[in-house]
Order: sequence, then structure tokens, then C-alpha cells
Amino acid sequence: MNSFWNKYPDIQEELYKIIRIMKENVKCSQKTIETALLNLIDSGGKLLRPAFVLLSGRFGKYDSEKLCRLGAVIEMIHMATLIHDDIIDDADLRRGNITIQSKYGKNYAVFMGDFLFARCFNLLSDDISFENIRNVSKVVSRICIGEIEQFSSRYILNISVKNYLRRISAKTAALFSLSCYIGASESNCDERLCKQLARVGYNIGMAFQIIDDILDYRGDQSIVGKPVGNDLKQGIFTLPLIYALKMGNKKLISILSKKDYNDDDVFRIIELTKELKGIDKAKDLAKNYTKRAFDHIFKLPDNKSKFVFMDVAEKLLKREY
Amino acid sequence: MNSFWNKYPDIQEELYKIIRIMKENVKCSQKTIETALLNLIDSGGKLLRPAFVLLSGRFGKYDSEKLCRLGAVIEMIHMATLIHDDIIDDADLRRGNITIQSKYGKNYAVFMGDFLFARCFNLLSDDISFENIRNVSKVVSRICIGEIEQFSSRYILNISVKNYLRRISAKTAALFSLSCYIGASESNCDERLCKQLARVGYNIGMAFQIIDDILDYRGDQSIVGKPVGNDLKQGIFTLPLIYALKMGNKKLISILSKKDYNDDDVFRIIELTKELKGIDKAKDLAKNYTKRAFDHIFKLPDNKSKFVFMDVAEKLLKREY
Repeated sequence: MNSFWNKYPDIQEELYKIIRIMKENVKCSQKTIETALLNLIDSGGKLLRPAFVLLSGRFGKYDSEKLCRLGAVIEMIHMATLIHDDIIDDADLRRGNITIQSKYGKNYAVFMGDFLFARCFNLLSDDISFENIRNVSKVVSRICIGEIEQFSSRYILNISVKNYLRRISAKTAALFSLSCYIGASESNCDERLCKQLARVGYNIGMAFQIIDDILDYRGDQSIVGKPVGNDLKQGIFTLPLIYALKMGNKKLISILSKKDYNDDDVFRIIELTKELKGIDKAKDLAKNYTKRAFDHIFKLPDNKSKFVFMDVAEKLLKREY
Repeated sequence: MNSFWNKYPDIQEELYKIIRIMKENVKCSQKTIETALLNLIDSGGKLLRPAFVLLSGRFGKYDSEKLCRLGAVIEMIHMATLIHDDIIDDADLRRGNITIQSKYGKNYAVFMGDFLFARCFNLLSDDISFENIRNVSKVVSRICIGEIEQFSSRYILNISVKNYLRRISAKTAALFSLSCYIGASESNCDERLCKQLARVGYNIGMAFQIIDDILDYRGDQSIVGKPVGNDLKQGIFTLPLIYALKMGNKKLISILSKKDYNDDDVFRIIELTKELKGIDKAKDLAKNYTKRAFDHIFKLPDNKSKFVFMDVAEKLLKREY
């Protein structure tokens, strides 16, 4: 597992359990599917979403077995969207490993993602409320809308910050928010507390995605685990560039208008984005979302999880991968 | 709607209701998704699976509203798999209309299919048992396995009939079987009767897919709604060809070994498949599955649906599209 949770052995132990549940649930007679999915599980993501399920559950009547199953479902949904996302992005690397679409081809990747979705709903129907099955499916459809919005906004030079925020809210923050909500809700927390935790998840999720997008501009491939400038090459303009574009720099506009960027172009775009303070401004907005997350965390009842949420929110803001 | 159900106005009326439910459930803020899915719904499939839900429900305590919702879910699942299937097949036409993957590109098609899956599970969580949510998700994962099996069996010259039957059982018959099972089960039929109806659906489904595969060899594109020889061009060897290959014809083996078939090759393969009685034998097996379906239908309690099932099973065997 990723070292992210080393400081919290109790969480880490349950995350190992979640990994075991996921592995159990991708078992299948078709060995190509099984091997590909087991490798993906082993590739070691930070498991933030299932950890948020667990942390939120600790504000209510904690049922470890049930929350671990739920955490596994949430992470499997995330994995399924990653598999399909990599098809769209034509991505070769994910978490430093070769992607399913690159290793097996897009055709396999389509149905492997679907298989994972199906297994999620199978596991979900074990013991959660109909209301929360509905919440999960709503978030899945929001993620799809976010992905399609992102794809249809490619190469648009005057894309607005608002459009960007709506897009990342759907494709990323919604699942973070749901992780907190569902962990609390299935632990019998009252609706007010569930919604409060959902807001914590939402704001951390927004900050998380902005930082992720910043790393596409200044990260080191060997640390981030995927190539720098990857979104850019696909024509996906994220927050640092959107801010930079607002400065009306002719050089930047001229390169971006080409719609097919070579490595030199990508280097120049990244340099100009830095010079025009796009990254600094994006970082400020990420800090702002983290601050909002903190405001919501402060209002939570006293509980060890509260401090873990603070620590994690700060760590995610400062991360380099 | 397709004219298939003209003879049965009561079924037809409920199928219109199902179309309305589907249209209601693909409404979405993202208009590209909505338009694409509304067009797909309007393209007029035969709606066999939802009709089987309704027909089976009539053996129990019939709740029209609930069964129409269920029928809509089953058809939407089928549509989602078609969208993803067309990505794999690189298909340009479906039901005589241009496919989503061809009109919008594979990238859109991936998340449009996912969106539809998500909406299915949303609708499902309205009022059906956890047991049947699990049954639906199990069938979705079987369909994925069937699709992947089919893809990994491409261009294999000594593919067995058994392999073919396993593949179509997963990718097609399982959903027909589920449609009958779930319609009966959610109408409080006893488990024995649900399973009996599931067997009816399964055998009709097997015959249906074999006929579908035969039509790829001898259908008329303007009637079938998709190009003839389409599977063949993708290296997917179906029953008529598998039977023909068993004859050890050197000419046939030599053309198929090329792995890239031009129109002349496809024409020659189809001709040889006919000459080597591949189509006749496949037709015999389809008849056999239809006979098995009849055997199971005979054992059902007396009910108007019983005769509709017989009529439909026979009509599907003789169909040209």
C-alpha cells in the first residue's frame, strides 16, 4: 500500500482489509479480467475515498465490516472510472504503472471497467439502504457527466473558471463528498452531521483535484507516476492554464491555437503558465478550498477523526504526487 | 416502435409506457448525452427483454407500474451494453441508425454507456428486492465476461462450439433469462415458477443469438439494419463458420488465416460457409433451442402469456431481421 496512511495504523489496518475485499470481489472465471484488476488494486493508490468512509463512520455507530465493504465499493467505482478515463486520455501510465487500456487495448478496457461497476453494485446490495444505492448511482452518473463535459470543453481558449469548477465538482469532488456522507449515514449519524461531513469531503475533493491539475504543470513524472503535461496534450485546459489565459498573453494564445502540441510547445505553455502566475493563483484557490474544509471540520463533534481530517487536508494540499 | 408487437396491443401499450420511462430517465443537464440516448431509444429495437419481463409478470400478482420500471431498467442495461459493444466492434450502424461511437467518437461512447448503467441502478433501487439488484449486477458482469471472451477468441480457427455457446450464453441468453426471472420474482411467483420462466428466457435467448449470427451471413443489410459480415471482419467467428470450419476445407482455412479480410474474402467465406452447410447446422441448433424453450413453456401454468411466448419463440426463429 501507498505510505500515505503510515501515521495512522488503525486506518491502515482497515484499508488492508478493504484491499482484501476488493481482491475477493474481482475474482472471476475470465483470468485476463481478474489479473488486470488485481494488478490495478496492487498498484497502490492513496485509498483516500475509502479512508474517508472509515473516518466519517467513526462519528456514528461504527460497524467495521460494513464500512470496509462500503469503502471497497467506493474505491472500485473510482477504479472503474479511472480505467474508462484512461481510454479517453489515451494514457499509458497511471500510478507509475502501465494502464489497462495501454496494456490490453481500449476494447478490453471498456468491458473491464463495466465489469468492475457491476461488481460494485453487487457488493452494494449486501447491506446498505436503497437511499444510499441511489446516492451512489447518482454520483456515478455525475462523474460521467463531468468526464463528458471535460471532453467537450477541449481546446476552448476562453473556458471559464466556473466551467472548470463545475467539471471537477462532478468528476472528483462528488465522490469524495459521497464517501463521507455514506460512511456517516450507514453508521446512523443524523442527517445534519452526514451533510456536514459531505461538505468536508467536497471541499477536500475540490482542493485535491486542483492540486492534481497543478502537478500536471510542475510535477516530476517519476514522483507523480504519470507524464507531466498529459492533460494539456489532450487539449484539456485546467485551472493554472485557465488563469494564465485570462492575462491575454498573445504568445500563449498563439501556441494553444495550434491544437496539436509537440514537446516544445508543452514546455513553452508550462513556462508561460508559470510566468503568468497561473500556478500561483490555482494554488491559492486550492488553499481556499482547504480552508473551507477546515471551517467545516471545526464544526464537527470532537472525535479523533476530526484531527485526522485536518492532517489529511493539509497533507493533500502540500503533496508532490 | 418496431412492429414486432402489433399483434399484442396490451403488451404494446405497456412497451410504450416503458419507452416513456426510459426517456424520462435519460434526462440530464448535459444535452449531448441526453440527445444521443433519446435517439437510441427512438431507434426502435424489438424491446424483447422488457416484453419478457411483462409476460412473466403475468404469471403472478401483476403490478404494471413496477414491471414497466423494471422493463425499462432491463432495456437500458441492454442499450448500455450495445453502446459499449459498438465501440469494440467499431460498428457504424445499429438498427439501421448510425451508432453513438461512430457519431460522437469512442470517448463519448464510453461514458454515455456508463451514464446509462448508473441510471439503471438508480431506477432499480426504487422498489425491487436486494436479491434482484444482485441478480441484475451478476448478469451485467456475465455480459462483460462474455464480451471479453468473444474479443479474446477472435481469429482462432479451431474455436469450439462449446466455447461459442458459453460466450452467447453470457453475452445474450443471461439477460433474456433474467428478464423472465425478475418479472416473475417481483410479481411474487414462487421460486420454482421463476426458475421455469428463466429457462424459457434462456433458451429463447440462445436461439435468438444464433439466428442473429446467422443473419450476419445471409441477411440483407437494408432489412437487418447493420452490415452483413460485420462480425467476420472483426475476426469474430460465430456458429455457422465454426460448423463450416469443422469440415477441414483448405480453401476456407487459407482465407481465414489472413486475419485481414477484404470484401472479396468476406464474400468467399460466406459462400463457403453456406456450401459447407454451416448455416443449415446453425439453424438446426437454433431450432433445437426453440424446441427446448417450447418444452419449458408447455410446463407453465395456463395463462395467455404462455401462448404469446410460443408465438414469439417461433417468430424469432423465422425472423429475417
